[in-house]
Amino acid sequence: MILVLKKSVTKEEINYIISKIEQAGLKPHISEGADVTIIGCIGHEDAVKAFFGEAEALAGVDKAIRISKPYKLASKELGKERSIFKIGDIEIGGDDIAVIAGPCAVENLENLTEIAENIKKSGAKVLRGGAFKPRTSPYTFQGLGEEGLKYLSEARKKTGLLVATEVMDPRDLDLVCSYADIIQVGARNMQNFRLLQDVGKVNKPVILKRGLCSTIQEFLMSAEYIMSNGNEQVILCERGIRTYETSTRNTLDLSAVPVLKRLSHLPVIVDPSHAAGVWYYVEPLSLAAVAVGADGLMIEVHPVPEKAFSDGAQSLKYGTFDDLINKAKAVAKAVGRNI
Amino acid sequence: MILVLKKSVTKEEINYIISKIEQAGLKPHISEGADVTIIGCIGHEDAVKAFFGEAEALAGVDKAIRISKPYKLASKELGKERSIFKIGDIEIGGDDIAVIAGPCAVENLENLTEIAENIKKSGAKVLRGGAFKPRTSPYTFQGLGEEGLKYLSEARKKTGLLVATEVMDPRDLDLVCSYADIIQVGARNMQNFRLLQDVGKVNKPVILKRGLCSTIQEFLMSAEYIMSNGNEQVILCERGIRTYETSTRNTLDLSAVPVLKRLSHLPVIVDPSHAAGVWYYVEPLSLAAVAVGADGLMIEVHPVPEKAFSDGAQSLKYGTFDDLINKAKAVAKAVGRNI
Amino acid sequence: MILVLKKSVTKEEINYIISKIEQAGLKPHISEGADVTIIGCIGHEDAVKAFFGEAEALAGVDKAIRISKPYKLASKELGKERSIFKIGDIEIGGDDIAVIAGPCAVENLENLTEIAENIKKSGAKVLRGGAFKPRTSPYTFQGLGEEGLKYLSEARKKTGLLVATEVMDPRDLDLVCSYADIIQVGARNMQNFRLLQDVGKVNKPVILKRGLCSTIQEFLMSAEYIMSNGNEQVILCERGIRTYETSTRNTLDLSAVPVLKRLSHLPVIVDPSHAAGVWYYVEPLSLAAVAVGADGLMIEVHPVPEKAFSDGAQSLKYGTFDDLINKAKAVAKAVGRNI
Amino acid sequence: MILVLKKSVTKEEINYIISKIEQAGLKPHISEGADVTIIGCIGHEDAVKAFFGEAEALAGVDKAIRISKPYKLASKELGKERSIFKIGDIEIGGDDIAVIAGPCAVENLENLTEIAENIKKSGAKVLRGGAFKPRTSPYTFQGLGEEGLKYLSEARKKTGLLVATEVMDPRDLDLVCSYADIIQVGARNMQNFRLLQDVGKVNKPVILKRGLCSTIQEFLMSAEYIMSNGNEQVILCERGIRTYETSTRNTLDLSAVPVLKRLSHLPVIVDPSHAAGVWYYVEPLSLAAVAVGADGLMIEVHPVPEKAFSDGAQSLKYGTFDDLINKAKAVAKAVGRNI
Repeated sequence: MILVLKKSVTKEEINYIISKIEQAGLKPHISEGADVTIIGCIGHEDAVKAFFGEAEALAGVDKAIRISKPYKLASKELGKERSIFKIGDIEIGGDDIAVIAGPCAVENLENLTEIAENIKKSGAKVLRGGAFKPRTSPYTFQGLGEEGLKYLSEARKKTGLLVATEVMDPRDLDLVCSYADIIQVGARNMQNFRLLQDVGKVNKPVILKRGLCSTIQEFLMSAEYIMSNGNEQVILCERGIRTYETSTRNTLDLSAVPVLKRLSHLPVIVDPSHAAGVWYYVEPLSLAAVAVGADGLMIEVHPVPEKAFSDGAQSLKYGTFDDLINKAKAVAKAVGRNI
Repeated sequence: MILVLKKSVTKEEINYIISKIEQAGLKPHISEGADVTIIGCIGHEDAVKAFFGEAEALAGVDKAIRISKPYKLASKELGKERSIFKIGDIEIGGDDIAVIAGPCAVENLENLTEIAENIKKSGAKVLRGGAFKPRTSPYTFQGLGEEGLKYLSEARKKTGLLVATEVMDPRDLDLVCSYADIIQVGARNMQNFRLLQDVGKVNKPVILKRGLCSTIQEFLMSAEYIMSNGNEQVILCERGIRTYETSTRNTLDLSAVPVLKRLSHLPVIVDPSHAAGVWYYVEPLSLAAVAVGADGLMIEVHPVPEKAFSDGAQSLKYGTFDDLINKAKAVAKAVGRNI
Repeated sequence: MILVLKKSVTKEEINYIISKIEQAGLKPHISEGADVTIIGCIGHEDAVKAFFGEAEALAGVDKAIRISKPYKLASKELGKERSIFKIGDIEIGGDDIAVIAGPCAVENLENLTEIAENIKKSGAKVLRGGAFKPRTSPYTFQGLGEEGLKYLSEARKKTGLLVATEVMDPRDLDLVCSYADIIQVGARNMQNFRLLQDVGKVNKPVILKRGLCSTIQEFLMSAEYIMSNGNEQVILCERGIRTYETSTRNTLDLSAVPVLKRLSHLPVIVDPSHAAGVWYYVEPLSLAAVAVGADGLMIEVHPVPEKAFSDGAQSLKYGTFDDLINKAKAVAKAVGRNI
Repeated sequence: MILVLKKSVTKEEINYIISKIEQAGLKPHISEGADVTIIGCIGHEDAVKAFFGEAEALAGVDKAIRISKPYKLASKELGKERSIFKIGDIEIGGDDIAVIAGPCAVENLENLTEIAENIKKSGAKVLRGGAFKPRTSPYTFQGLGEEGLKYLSEARKKTGLLVATEVMDPRDLDLVCSYADIIQVGARNMQNFRLLQDVGKVNKPVILKRGLCSTIQEFLMSAEYIMSNGNEQVILCERGIRTYETSTRNTLDLSAVPVLKRLSHLPVIVDPSHAAGVWYYVEPLSLAAVAVGADGLMIEVHPVPEKAFSDGAQSLKYGTFDDLINKAKAVAKAVGRNI
């Protein structure tokens, strides 16, 4: 940590600051400049962390700047270059780009099975579908609950696809884990820290969606919550951030993919459907996601989007999805990967 | 709801759209313009809501525009002008502006009692303090839990102040309610819909903090979640939104106060401490909050901010807090209210 | 235009509103709903435009919603699917993806010529370089002015590359046009309407950069400013928008490419260098730009980035640039285009 | 400046970095920590500035952190606490809060004179009105030009009010200065650096509006552009920033007032009309602006807002404006100031 002192700092204040640094178990290192004096605080990470808040409030201190990253397990600093998670027959984070597809919400068994069969034909490996749905309005469809989980399980049996589904509440975690191959923490729960802690205690891969206004650092800190509780199988998912622009529902931050891959060894997938909010931008954004280095795509598919229980406007029909996957295969090949 | 049709819409598409509107139990109302054709969909709110998603995905429809507000209980549309909640001896939402103050986190009984006594002297009516703390990092202090609740209860006994504290997990709700006079749902949980539903089932006033990137409409929808489950005592709290500007931690959106008061009958309070992130902006922002029409202030106070377990940099010392309240009293009087 | 009336609107107010609509030369079309009454205002676009401001302020009106797009020449509504501009030997907006490269600022003739020769070898068709530089600080290098333009012209003579350079001030326009093949309007000048008007009167293709917080609609309105003054050769350039995220300098809004191509016939290029702010994200973002449908790439190249007069951190060295172009060629081929 | 080195930095890289620092005329100051090594670069501000870009691009450097502020004349660092500008009979930046009011655009002499007389009665000291109007669309009213300036001058003669009006183009600067007492640079021109330079060469107070997505630092850098060219009479104006929230046109960043006053000695005024976008939020935001410490208010007033040539929805009628000023006087008194 570096303390930048105020221009007006007095000799007494500097002495007091130094005594505080030493009391905190750190070694001060003063650099007096023509314009400004800075003090480096050197020592064990934990001591630095503990001292940070105090330091900012000391008289004479203009600002305290943290140097080292606050996340550890999620970072590359321990030498790990790339995590590859083997789930069933597939790998996420390796050279193959995983395609995860399905309806926004599970609606009924027949419909779900039909979707599962169709996306499988096009090349998807994982079936997604919400049984517990976070909805902005209390008056809209909230998901089928356990019934939906059962349908997912049935669809898996018929198609061999893996199943990914969201958990919203720590009290549903065991239930969801008993049906799902991959659990998902939604964007609105990215900083539901209790849920993260509990998800960290199960032995299931987790898709963690980036919050709508979460920084990359907060996103990695939420991954750290899960990992520090024991579950290291975290798959990061960029799904659009909130900006002033309204021509798409959210702004898909594709830069986040190379940024996350530079900072972390965890796999990064992209959900263009929720970001776009309308189906006709899903294809170009999917191709861009593959080109930018994503390890997977998560795409909404529905046979009759205008009848979907939720988010119909952003769902692809079977034919459009199949076209997309074919084009994505070509782009994947161009960047040395496979779908 | 209004459907704006595409320029390229065909006669067949229009006929199909109309048949769909009628199937949905709504009455279509067509206006053909020189440039554009629109169809009004008139009928019961629930039918409109159900049809909205489908409508957007119909061929020939450019966009669907919702006209009526999606929240009901939180809105003024039912004729209610202003909700006043009587809690213990105080009223929130009336002419008095409530001052809620205390440390970010409860640290120990002695410290808490001292703070409670001091803020009471300055005019605060409610003691705030976190026993369960949502923290970005899993490695930082997470709160004292039930022990913290007990200290709050002790401090109440000694000072007569009411107690407000945060609940982060539905599983802690009964516990928190057994100690607190007012429960708080934090910004990061504003769309933790399961927590909102459960909070809606208890009989305690709730301070609902606006999410860092939540729109006013989403904020009111979250209030609606609580209210539609039976608990109508929701106090809205503006605490800063996330923008590109970094000179304050968040950007306090003081416009939100008159906007919320125009749309809703619920009381609106302001937390300038978390928005500012540094103590020296808390006073001017508090005065502005009073002037703009806030029904309450929520302010962090700590005797030795540089030793606070969390958020020390934004806490006021006793003297500074006392000065602030005196100035706030003058501004309150100038706008016809009391502190 | 649609007027949504307030619930509290009176019969008298409605009559007055209708009389106003008729006075404005428009035909009112009333739809009374259970919850809300709306009035469509139908007639000539100009009359609608003129009435819009007045309508919003009428008593009883809740909001006025514009239906038709405010830009015309830039839109596809007149039936034009795609503009292709032939400039020298190249085409922008066709199947070929144009590569525009060069230093941020022109520094000296030798350096510029060397860069030009190197980027040409890698496949660039246009040399970019700033002679007039918009700089946040008055104390930093502001560009070589006309001397820089002369160097660009020399470099063109030696390499046959076209030259693109920025104009910041209407008073420099003739000068810049006498040297450049393509003129550029920078992000900070996207709403310098006087400059846009003057640029609209010259006969040179214009690269118009999107402002840091400009909406897609504002972006197209600025193109409309240029086009409505006679110059229809506008090339739109997405270069990153300002968001709360700080891990890249700006957030490259790649969704803007398909959005702009859906709304407008104008070519759309992408500048990943300014958005990223650091060189190591330029390659993945360039590949994503090609995959998402961009008609061109604008990339900063410098032989010794750490010695560049400006924006060194985001410049690519020759070898890295050459690698990038080779990969971009493969992605272009995968999406049916050429570099 | 501080260089934070990468964990992977080699001894050779450190030596090379040090040699570079010394070549740049700076003194390196190394602090080796357990986790990270930092190098302070100490010396003359200009040398630091020149070296900054190079430093970031050096191998082994993770990031370069500037410590001192890039603006000088606008900052308080030279010891100046508060600038007070005497313009005609009034002072801006002192204890009096200046009220600037008038129509968005000058429309005709009769209307302007009537407005001037009315706002004067309520307590305004400066008449505002646009003769040159920056408009998003090329098809809307662009202002009366010199004719508008003449009307402003006439209205000044009749009422004794000072006149403030916008300049959009350096070529109009002499003309505008020959009529106006205060010139204004609009939000969209805040980084039109050529205009700033020229405005810096005239001897007239300037209201500089903050750009819609400008940081506080960029805002002060634009003030610095004007001041470093010789004109030190810069009045900063907060007028709302662009965020995701759409319930007001922009988000009025009232925190900017105390932030600017902490960093700079320049006066700060607030324009609530453009931020709100609708008249009914102007009063509470004006009172908040006074309470937060603004040195002036800039408010749009129009006798028949629904007939205004531009921005009618946000204009106040005479009576509403008069009420607002009376309330603002009470708030001003409460915070020890006068209107």
